[in-house]
Amino acid sequence: MEVEVKFRVTDLEEIERKISETAEFVVEKFEYDVYFNHPCRNFAETDEALRIRKDSDGFTLTYKGAKIDYETKTRDEIKVGIDDFEKTKEILVRLGFRVAGRVAKRRRIYRRGEIIICLDWIEELGSFVELEIESGNLNEAKKKIFEYAEMLGFEAEKSIRKSYLEMILDVAHNNRER
Amino acid sequence: MEVEVKFRVTDLEEIERKISETAEFVVEKFEYDVYFNHPCRNFAETDEALRIRKDSDGFTLTYKGAKIDYETKTRDEIKVGIDDFEKTKEILVRLGFRVAGRVAKRRRIYRRGEIIICLDWIEELGSFVELEIESGNLNEAKKKIFEYAEMLGFEAEKSIRKSYLEMILDVAHNNRER
Repeated sequence: MEVEVKFRVTDLEEIERKISETAEFVVEKFEYDVYFNHPCRNFAETDEALRIRKDSDGFTLTYKGAKIDYETKTRDEIKVGIDDFEKTKEILVRLGFRVAGRVAKRRRIYRRGEIIICLDWIEELGSFVELEIESGNLNEAKKKIFEYAEMLGFEAEKSIRKSYLEMILDVAHNNRER
Repeated sequence: MEVEVKFRVTDLEEIERKISETAEFVVEKFEYDVYFNHPCRNFAETDEALRIRKDSDGFTLTYKGAKIDYETKTRDEIKVGIDDFEKTKEILVRLGFRVAGRVAKRRRIYRRGEIIICLDWIEELGSFVELEIESGNLNEAKKKIFEYAEMLGFEAEKSIRKSYLEMILDVAHNNRER
């Protein structure tokens, strides 16, 4: 289980300083994601996601189950490596999956013990911090994550449960409304 | 495009002798396939297929489009390598795909110019020969394939268009009827 919380970053320099003082820098990545809708299920309603990702490590196909906790983005995640991005996309399209949206990000990954910290810059959205723990124990993992979030100056109640994809689709929707 | 015909083999020794005299042995493989039904489309009607395969080279995910020729098994095929068989199966099941059936085969592959010859032994079904050419020119490919089939003693009209999966499902169905 991936226990995960996300916060919007207003002062990137300040946050990056705090993170680099309390956690170890791991790697910088550029990720390009394509999300799909199901041919006969509304993922917006079932709260699932299907994604193919392209990054410097290669390509992956990931299924995300519905979120199972109110305060966090915790959910089941099943990920497999694939050897061809375009062909996987083509298989999904032929099966009736429709492209829902695309997310392009620069991600700086830090580690503090079990906690993975992602300092993200998302095209069209701006900067965010995601804190993650892989764990079988939801409550313990949440406690650790929210303790560290507080140390960075984030309030638990400002945690964002929406995915980047949902936020991008919101922006697109709001732009259409105007 | 994969232009492909299949024939049932009654005398395996005789056919293997003829093939080994006219083509070059490439490799012997053991393949284990799991086929899926679509969550909201009847693949038996649309003549599509979705398969994950385990063999000595690793794992693949393959989509097969509907057959596009009356006499052969010619169809679009999109194949990607995957790094985990069970997790890919789990993703498909979570997306609502249902296991349709399993095919286990021993395959001896020979080559004669462009023609790939597969001498297959299929669990529950017996022995078959498949002749394949990868080609953009259907008619030319068919001509080459049927010429060689005739040389091996197979009559074009005895070509089998059913997949091994369909044949295995037929056997299961007939056993239930009895």
